[in-house]
Amino acid sequence: MEDDFEELRKSLIKKTKERISKDYESEEYALMQAINAYNETLKVYNTLYERLAEWYSLYFPELPLQQQKSLADLVMVLNTERDIGAGALQGIFEDRNKAESIAAKAASSIGRRMTAEEKDTILEYAKLYKQAEQTLKALEGYMKASAGRIMPNTTYLTDEKIAAELLAKAGSMERLATFPSSTIQLLGAEKALFKHIKFGSKPPKYGSIFKLPAISNARHDIRGKIARMYAAKIAMALKADYYSKKFIADKLMSDLEAGIKKANESPEKPKKQTSWKMGSTRNIGRQRRRR
Amino acid sequence: MEDDFEELRKSLIKKTKERISKDYESEEYALMQAINAYNETLKVYNTLYERLAEWYSLYFPELPLQQQKSLADLVMVLNTERDIGAGALQGIFEDRNKAESIAAKAASSIGRRMTAEEKDTILEYAKLYKQAEQTLKALEGYMKASAGRIMPNTTYLTDEKIAAELLAKAGSMERLATFPSSTIQLLGAEKALFKHIKFGSKPPKYGSIFKLPAISNARHDIRGKIARMYAAKIAMALKADYYSKKFIADKLMSDLEAGIKKANESPEKPKKQTSWKMGSTRNIGRQRRRR
Repeated sequence: MEDDFEELRKSLIKKTKERISKDYESEEYALMQAINAYNETLKVYNTLYERLAEWYSLYFPELPLQQQKSLADLVMVLNTERDIGAGALQGIFEDRNKAESIAAKAASSIGRRMTAEEKDTILEYAKLYKQAEQTLKALEGYMKASAGRIMPNTTYLTDEKIAAELLAKAGSMERLATFPSSTIQLLGAEKALFKHIKFGSKPPKYGSIFKLPAISNARHDIRGKIARMYAAKIAMALKADYYSKKFIADKLMSDLEAGIKKANESPEKPKKQTSWKMGSTRNIGRQRRRR
Repeated sequence: MEDDFEELRKSLIKKTKERISKDYESEEYALMQAINAYNETLKVYNTLYERLAEWYSLYFPELPLQQQKSLADLVMVLNTERDIGAGALQGIFEDRNKAESIAAKAASSIGRRMTAEEKDTILEYAKLYKQAEQTLKALEGYMKASAGRIMPNTTYLTDEKIAAELLAKAGSMERLATFPSSTIQLLGAEKALFKHIKFGSKPPKYGSIFKLPAISNARHDIRGKIARMYAAKIAMALKADYYSKKFIADKLMSDLEAGIKKANESPEKPKKQTSWKMGSTRNIGRQRRRR
């Protein structure tokens, strides 16, 4: 009798384990981790760059800082003697004249001379920056492949980052697929939405989908309209991705393009004059704080 | 005549360049960059760890997460087949039993099975985490050496991180050496200080120097007193570091220890009952916000 209970108990535990295991089988959980990791790493990458640029300008203030990408490479070749040599720079800058001009500037720089200790330290820091760059690339590659598999329709309409971000905000494909288009339009604008509900500020028109060039570059007076059209099509694409698993995105896209074209043909409304109003309320706020 | 002007102009430019060059000769500028980089990288390190732990728990939820250090190493050996083998773990955990128990847990884990793609991606992420660790170590090593050279007295009383942080807050040794002890006591507590001045909250008792174990672990009723004593000695140490360049820190330290001993001998005051008051004001704030 007791043995039967023990047997039953074990088989139930096994079943539960299997069910939990199955719940995590879907790739969407890994994709959500990847997009969150990507957004965090992007912030890290920019923080590291700012510090590296400030630190390096101590040694080489004449360096024109236009290329974020090549700075870390430059840190890696600059030695304590400040004599870079145009040869080493050739690998970084494709333009031969540019490499020579930077080498000349480095040789006569008024910046501080690096000690060997400082060189080692800033080199480790530059390595961290390079690794952040590489990690971002790996995350991007994974997201592209994964989002293409899980949500081919949505990725076709938007891109892998926006699709993954929508998924991460919803928490699962099951939940995201049931969202109405109005929710999808504002996913990622929660802060502005609650500010609107609480304080009566203007309601947001778009959340994560604002990153789509078709929306962010649109004419200001029809931007909200285009966002609404996009959200409606994305909602349909998500349902196709989760339920029917059919590819309907090309059809949705041509509908969308027709709609956007039509909206663009309408006469453009002039921008509202809000600058004066904004300025004055801001001043009132300032005076209040001063008192 | 014109040639004379041209000559004069060139020599003046040269002089100015030399002067700027000389201004940056002091190592303190590199030290300030290093402490700022250190504080930023520490934040980055913790962000990366949190994400790595969350992500990895998808694949291996049974892993007991106690050692922040070994997680990245673990990610690097776990393969897609989930069969780690106690041998690979031996290098990470010194305890043989622990390595075997983790290997057994991994083999029967209910977590998601890693695809090769996911493995590559999380591996890059783990590498970034490891590089952050290495960069922190390099920065620490540099700060130790550099702060010991620039401010031997101050480092003797505090440690290289606190000394460097005080320097970074002040902006230069020249400025820091002129600060009175009351300013040094509160450097790093600017936010709390201005809150006190503006809204009348309690004044802060310590800034960056609170990181000293002698202050943070002190008896609550004499903590402010000990911070004041420390700040006074640090102010003297800084003046010695910048002006006389003599080593007087051992003398200062023994004075300080005598003062702390004396303060500890005084009878302990009971803690003030502030919990009720704090609770009530907090509730008022909440009600106000709700309305």
